[in-house]
Amino acid sequence: MNNFTYHNPTELIFGRGTLEHLATKLERYGKNILLVYGGGSIKRTGLYDKIIHILRAEGCQVTELPGVEPNPRLSTVRKGIELCRTNQISLVLAVGGGSVIDAAKGIAVGAVYDGDVWDFYLRKAVPNTALPLGTVLTLAATGSEMNRSSVVTNWETQQKHGASTTFPAFSILDPEHTFSVPKDQTIYGICDILSHVFEQYFTHTTEIPLQSRIAESIMKTVIENAELVLANPEDYDARANLLYAGTMALNGTLPVGVVTDWATHAIEHAVSAIYDIPHGGGLAIIFPNWMKYVYKENVGRFVRFATEVWDVNPADKTEEEVALEGISRLEEFFIRIGAPRRLADYQIGDEHLDSMAVKGTPYGPIGNFKVLEKEDVREILRMSL
Amino acid sequence: MNNFTYHNPTELIFGRGTLEHLATKLERYGKNILLVYGGGSIKRTGLYDKIIHILRAEGCQVTELPGVEPNPRLSTVRKGIELCRTNQISLVLAVGGGSVIDAAKGIAVGAVYDGDVWDFYLRKAVPNTALPLGTVLTLAATGSEMNRSSVVTNWETQQKHGASTTFPAFSILDPEHTFSVPKDQTIYGICDILSHVFEQYFTHTTEIPLQSRIAESIMKTVIENAELVLANPEDYDARANLLYAGTMALNGTLPVGVVTDWATHAIEHAVSAIYDIPHGGGLAIIFPNWMKYVYKENVGRFVRFATEVWDVNPADKTEEEVALEGISRLEEFFIRIGAPRRLADYQIGDEHLDSMAVKGTPYGPIGNFKVLEKEDVREILRMSL
Repeated sequence: MNNFTYHNPTELIFGRGTLEHLATKLERYGKNILLVYGGGSIKRTGLYDKIIHILRAEGCQVTELPGVEPNPRLSTVRKGIELCRTNQISLVLAVGGGSVIDAAKGIAVGAVYDGDVWDFYLRKAVPNTALPLGTVLTLAATGSEMNRSSVVTNWETQQKHGASTTFPAFSILDPEHTFSVPKDQTIYGICDILSHVFEQYFTHTTEIPLQSRIAESIMKTVIENAELVLANPEDYDARANLLYAGTMALNGTLPVGVVTDWATHAIEHAVSAIYDIPHGGGLAIIFPNWMKYVYKENVGRFVRFATEVWDVNPADKTEEEVALEGISRLEEFFIRIGAPRRLADYQIGDEHLDSMAVKGTPYGPIGNFKVLEKEDVREILRMSL
Repeated sequence: MNNFTYHNPTELIFGRGTLEHLATKLERYGKNILLVYGGGSIKRTGLYDKIIHILRAEGCQVTELPGVEPNPRLSTVRKGIELCRTNQISLVLAVGGGSVIDAAKGIAVGAVYDGDVWDFYLRKAVPNTALPLGTVLTLAATGSEMNRSSVVTNWETQQKHGASTTFPAFSILDPEHTFSVPKDQTIYGICDILSHVFEQYFTHTTEIPLQSRIAESIMKTVIENAELVLANPEDYDARANLLYAGTMALNGTLPVGVVTDWATHAIEHAVSAIYDIPHGGGLAIIFPNWMKYVYKENVGRFVRFATEVWDVNPADKTEEEVALEGISRLEEFFIRIGAPRRLADYQIGDEHLDSMAVKGTPYGPIGNFKVLEKEDVREILRMSL
C-alpha cells in the first residue's frame, strides 16, 4: 500500500423524502441561490416545483441557470460565474446529474477567482476557495456529488478537461429522483460507474486487499442491480443500491494507497470533445478494448477480475484464458444491458483518429497500468471503431 | 436500505513517515497545544521525542497530560479540561490508541462547555462545539481516529459510557508506529476491529448488498492479516492493512442505511466498568456467546457470515449447522491468535453477574438484532464465565 491522504467533507443525505432536509441546509448558506439545472427533465418530473417551493418558503432569492448540456460547456460555466457576481450568490445549488454538478463546481470556484475559470482545467491554477455548493442528484452515475472533480468542454478549442475544484457541502440523494431516468441514461450511468471502478482497480500496486475487495463489492453490486433497474425502473431498492454504489465508486474510497489509471477516461474525453457522445456510452465502447490492449501488463489482476467479479471458473484454463474470459463477460454484460458496442454505433469512423489520439494525450503519455503514447491511444480507438 | 446521513470531515494522513505532515497541520490551529498520551510507551519508542521536536520547531507552547488509562477515566478527562482552560489551549493533540483519543475527545468538547463533561456521557447534553483535535494513532483497533465517539469510565459510579463528541480534524496513521505494539495489545486490537464490524453486520435490514460486502471485505482483510502481524510485528504491509481496516470498520461507512446492534459493546462496558479488563479481550469472550444466544433471530445472516467470511461449505448441512459452524470458526480463530476465551481467564466469577446485567442495560433493553433485557444480558454473561 502506498501513502495516502483522504479527506472528504461532503455531507451525504440519502433516502426517500430526504429533499425535506434542503430547508435546514439553506439556513447555513445565505439566501441568494443560483439554481443550476439541465434540459428541463426536473420540470417534467415535478422536482423543480418542489425545490422552488422550498426555496421560496425559506425566503430565498433564486437566480436560475437552466440548460446545462450533457457534456457541460465552458461557455455555460462562464455564464453561471457572471450570474453569481451580478447577484451576490451565496449558494450554488445544482439539481441534476454529473454534468449539472460538474458545471456548478466550475461556477463555484470561478465566481471567487480573479482569472478565467478555464485556467483550472488547463492546470494553470489551482482553486483554493469556492462558493458553497449543494447538490440534489437525479442520476446514478457520476460520483460528482461526493468529490471535487469537474469535467468541462471548451467547444471553441474542442478540449474536454477535468479539474480538481470543490467538494459539495451537502448532497441530497433520493433514489426516487432516479425513477424517471430514461433507459439509455440509466444504461450510460451503469457503464460510467463500472468504468470509475475499473480506473482504480487495474493497478500494479500490491498489498491492497481491502481496497481491492471494496472495488469488487461495488462492481458486483452494480452488476446484480443493473438488470433489476432496467426491468423495473421504479424498483426502489435496486435504484438505491445503484445510487449508493455510484457515489462509493468515486468518493475517494477506492484510490487510497493505490496507483490509479484513468487513461480510458482521457481517451473518452478526446472522443466526446469532437463528437459529443454520451460519456458512459463512450466508456462502454472503449473499456473492453483498453483491457484487451493492456491486460498482459498484469495478467494476475485480470484473473482476479474474472474470478472474483464474473465468477469465471479457472479450472483447466491458462491465466491468459481466464483473463480474456473476464473481459468477454464484461462485453456480454454490456450487450445484455443494451450499451453501445462500437464507435460506429455513434456514426464515428476513422476520420479523426489522429486528432483524437492527440487530444487524448494532451500533456503527454496517459495511464499507469500501461503507459499509453499517442500511438497506443490511436490503436485502442481503432480497435473500438 | 434505510435512509441515512453520512458526514465525516476527518482528514486521514496514512503511511510511512507521515508524521512530518504534523508541522503543516499545526499552522492552522494555533500554538497552544495540549499533548495527551498514555502510559509512556511513546517515550520508549521515541515517538514522543519526534513530536516534541516538531512542536518546538513550530514554536508551540506544549502542555502535557500523560498517563491516560487503558479505560480512560472521567477524572483524567476533567484534569485535561482544566489544563485547556488554564493554558488557553488551541489544539488538543492525542498521541496513542483509542483510550488516549477517547479521553482527548472528552477534553476537546468539555473545555468549551459550561457544564460538567459527564453530562454528554449521561446523554443529558449534546456537544455542539469543541476545541480542534488532532491525533497520532499508535494502535490498530479503535476507529476513534476517524469518528466522533468517545467512551469514558466514571470510577466513582462504576459507569462506562459512550458519547458522540467531536471528529478529529486530522489523524496521522503511520503503520510503523504500530510495530512496537505488544503482542497482547495487538490481539486485543484485532478482536476490537472484528467486533466493530459484527455490531454493524448482524442486522435484519435487507437490501444492503454493498454495505454487507464491505463489512465482509474488512473481516476477511483482518483475518488474513492478523496472523501475519503476530508472526512478524514489523511486517509493514500487514500492519498497514490492519490499521486501515480498523479505521474503515468504525468511520461510519458500515452503518449507512443499516440498523446496527451494539449490545455486545454495552455488555463489555458493564464488565470492564467493574473489572477494568482490556476492552478487546472482553469482546472476544462475549461475542461468540452473544452469537450463540441470538443467531436464531436471523439464521440466514449467520449462514452468510459462515460462507462468505469463513468459507464454510454448506453442502449437506442444515442452515443452523452452517450458522453454528461459522461461529465455531470465529472461536477457533480467536484461540489461534491467543485471545482470551472465558471471563475466568480474567479471574471473573459469577459474583457480580446481576450487577453487570444492570449496568449493561442502563437505559433499558439493548441491541436490535435481538432486543436484550437485563435477564438476557445475565445469561450471555453466564455463558461467558
